Amino acid sequence: MPATSPNPIVETLKNRRQQLAQLISFPVILWSGKPSSRNFPHNTFPFRPSSHFLYFAGLPVEDAAIRLDSGKLELFMDDPNPESTLWHGVMPTRAQIAEAIGADAAFPKQELASRATGAATIMVQDSATRAEQYMVRNMVRHSVQPKCSAPLPRTDDRYDDRYKEIDLQLAQAIATVRLTHDQIALSQLMSAAACTMQAHLAGMMATPRAKTEAMVRAAMEGVLIANNMQCAYNSIVTVHGEVLHNQVYHHPLQPGDLLLVDLGAETASGWAADVTRTWPVSGKFSPTQRDIYDIVLAAHDACIAYARPGVEYQDIHLLACRVIAEGLVNLGILKGQPEDLVEMDAHALFFPHGIGHLLGLDVHDMEDLGDIAGYETGRVRSDRFGLCFLRLNRPLRAGMLVTIEPGFYQVPAILNQPENRNKYKDVVNWEYLAKFADVRGIRIEDDVLITDGRSETLTADLPTNPHIIEQIIQG
Amino acid sequence: MPATSPNPIVETLKNRRQQLAQLISFPVILWSGKPSSRNFPHNTFPFRPSSHFLYFAGLPVEDAAIRLDSGKLELFMDDPNPESTLWHGVMPTRAQIAEAIGADAAFPKQELASRATGAATIMVQDSATRAEQYMVRNMVRHSVQPKCSAPLPRTDDRYDDRYKEIDLQLAQAIATVRLTHDQIALSQLMSAAACTMQAHLAGMMATPRAKTEAMVRAAMEGVLIANNMQCAYNSIVTVHGEVLHNQVYHHPLQPGDLLLVDLGAETASGWAADVTRTWPVSGKFSPTQRDIYDIVLAAHDACIAYARPGVEYQDIHLLACRVIAEGLVNLGILKGQPEDLVEMDAHALFFPHGIGHLLGLDVHDMEDLGDIAGYETGRVRSDRFGLCFLRLNRPLRAGMLVTIEPGFYQVPAILNQPENRNKYKDVVNWEYLAKFADVRGIRIEDDVLITDGRSETLTADLPTNPHIIEQIIQG
Repeated sequence: MPATSPNPIVETLKNRRQQLAQLISFPVILWSGKPSSRNFPHNTFPFRPSSHFLYFAGLPVEDAAIRLDSGKLELFMDDPNPESTLWHGVMPTRAQIAEAIGADAAFPKQELASRATGAATIMVQDSATRAEQYMVRNMVRHSVQPKCSAPLPRTDDRYDDRYKEIDLQLAQAIATVRLTHDQIALSQLMSAAACTMQAHLAGMMATPRAKTEAMVRAAMEGVLIANNMQCAYNSIVTVHGEVLHNQVYHHPLQPGDLLLVDLGAETASGWAADVTRTWPVSGKFSPTQRDIYDIVLAAHDACIAYARPGVEYQDIHLLACRVIAEGLVNLGILKGQPEDLVEMDAHALFFPHGIGHLLGLDVHDMEDLGDIAGYETGRVRSDRFGLCFLRLNRPLRAGMLVTIEPGFYQVPAILNQPENRNKYKDVVNWEYLAKFADVRGIRIEDDVLITDGRSETLTADLPTNPHIIEQIIQG
Repeated sequence: MPATSPNPIVETLKNRRQQLAQLISFPVILWSGKPSSRNFPHNTFPFRPSSHFLYFAGLPVEDAAIRLDSGKLELFMDDPNPESTLWHGVMPTRAQIAEAIGADAAFPKQELASRATGAATIMVQDSATRAEQYMVRNMVRHSVQPKCSAPLPRTDDRYDDRYKEIDLQLAQAIATVRLTHDQIALSQLMSAAACTMQAHLAGMMATPRAKTEAMVRAAMEGVLIANNMQCAYNSIVTVHGEVLHNQVYHHPLQPGDLLLVDLGAETASGWAADVTRTWPVSGKFSPTQRDIYDIVLAAHDACIAYARPGVEYQDIHLLACRVIAEGLVNLGILKGQPEDLVEMDAHALFFPHGIGHLLGLDVHDMEDLGDIAGYETGRVRSDRFGLCFLRLNRPLRAGMLVTIEPGFYQVPAILNQPENRNKYKDVVNWEYLAKFADVRGIRIEDDVLITDGRSETLTADLPTNPHIIEQIIQG
């Protein structure tokens, strides 16, 4: 291959920073971060770089920074020290990383401070790097390095006025660029989706022999580990789907249980998938479970069919609410007109969360920026019970990747609340609802790419059809 | 059961704090900590409480603190707020936790500040809680809470003189108490050991069908997950054992490779195991691999046989060095008298690390205290190449749990260093060494409990015998 042949990753990174350069007029420094400590400093969690760094630098380099200015990239990192070779082997040098990511120049990290004047940034998650971010931008007067620990900045300097405005502009510009995905991102997102689908199939197939939630989780996360991926978030593998963020795995599996599994892979360069399926432990949905499953599936299918450029994501959420309300009316659990029931948030008794969120390098993409990425400029969160948890409120655009994840839950904290019992006493058939006690929680979640044509579900190969799911479990 | 029957866990916790009370004369506050963020604030790593909190409180409670004073325990935590029930289900109340751990009193967290005067503490790993530690002890003048992030203290206040001395005394006292293990701790440590042994067996059995390191790792970590345990540290599963802290898993397995696997489980309440085995991918050691394996195994066995109360751990390290040097002399790789070779650190060319460390709630137990736990008062690290990495330098006592982990590695950064080539030119048969190119790294590591009788290897049921390992792999 001739040395001048274009490297698609380098070209993509260049294109990303040129897009950014068109939106801002100041330099930017993005830090990759350092590993966070677990129970003592050298026992760290696996290193997870800042997503913004990953987006523009492409590689998970530890303790590095990039400076972006008018489309140019400068890399700041130290060459591995000779002693670390003993413990960590031969690591790539600064020059090698610089070449791999198409840097225009590369410097030792200590040069960063002299190139930082007027540069905007986004704060990373680990405190040692955050302290460095303050120091490099002269936001800390004292830089005493405490023994055996990370330096810590002064709280009162946290949002220096010099930086508040450009940091905000940078966050808005990055949100604009990262909101839609290029081909390199999509190929990563599809890898994460493929591995995630394989894990869910393994989970279904492992269920008949599994005695606990933990044993299904093991079969599923094993697929991720075997493929050199990791969990994009802490998995939910639970027979208590009514606990929305359940992260315990000790319950035994009983024949009448539904298992709700929300588990997604993340590729080595940080791109995520986010998928939920709900299946019967016995391999056969009960009639009541099947009734509710079909309602959630109808909402799921309707939302995906409706998703296209120009459609407001909040309208997709409201569509799910209506389909669920209508299904529950037909079933006899709710009483009234679906539109009216949604208007009074009656659907939210059973579907209290939003229909989904952005997906990309973060499972809730760019949630570190608050609602800057999720909410169109000028829009704020609703205070309505049925809308306040909606994480995305924008018109859809081609190239956006979103989750569609309707659900039905019987959350005691909601259903037993006296205010709710009273407010919804005429629209819920509470007695009839009691027949559905074996449906604690159902969610069906897929990752949907918005395209100019029909939206494309990246995780469509993982069945949602209840018959096929039953067949997979039954073997 | 009568309500007055003694609860062995409560009794053990009481006994632990009474031991501490005999060593210090000031109150102590220990924080459990909060989860650390991964790529955005709500996407956290699994919560891992501070080990010191776990030791005295027994339960992995998030965002809690205990105050110990003269053997009494006060619990500080907030009751779960009603909104969190929607996401996390019904969580135990302060009163329930207080009862489970035998607290003498329990208060909301905000009461902590008024009970903190003169209390020593040990800093935790997560920055949000560290900030709280400073604030509660009045070590921070400003407490502006920055939006969307943890409050950060001022660097210049980090080690306030009022606290420096009692914090150090506390660290020494806790090291004394935690240095030997009680029955409750031992039963946890044995559970971790049992699960770890099962994982290693699964890894050996998965090897013939595995194409990559990652696939063996998946089989092993799957055992931990299925048993509701987690990794006590980032696993090493590598055909490049010469990279001591290798944490990549992408290499394909080739028939002539040795797989070095250092992987240990941690129980839900935080107690760890730490085990290494090295096995041939093909199921059959080559003659050169077998020659070196036998030397490492001889060192391993000799050290375990020698470990007993009163023996200096450094002498166990030096015993391993001599056995390895002697083995390499007999094999023809080293030339000279083993004692002289150890004296000149020639063994460290191939065995550069220490023979092991303390094991307990941390895989390097109490390493957050620096060398306070590992080194007898008054002793400091050697600057000798063959001794500087030794993490434990104390006379052994009954009830201590230590690892014994001799190894042999061909680390290019050591063996190709011109200074080493020159210094050791007469004692290494470099030409003959080249015949051992298929031995990149071998380590054999077990967890050894020091008792008044013969030391007890908690992980002894996992074979070290090369024939038996071959048979397991071959099925």
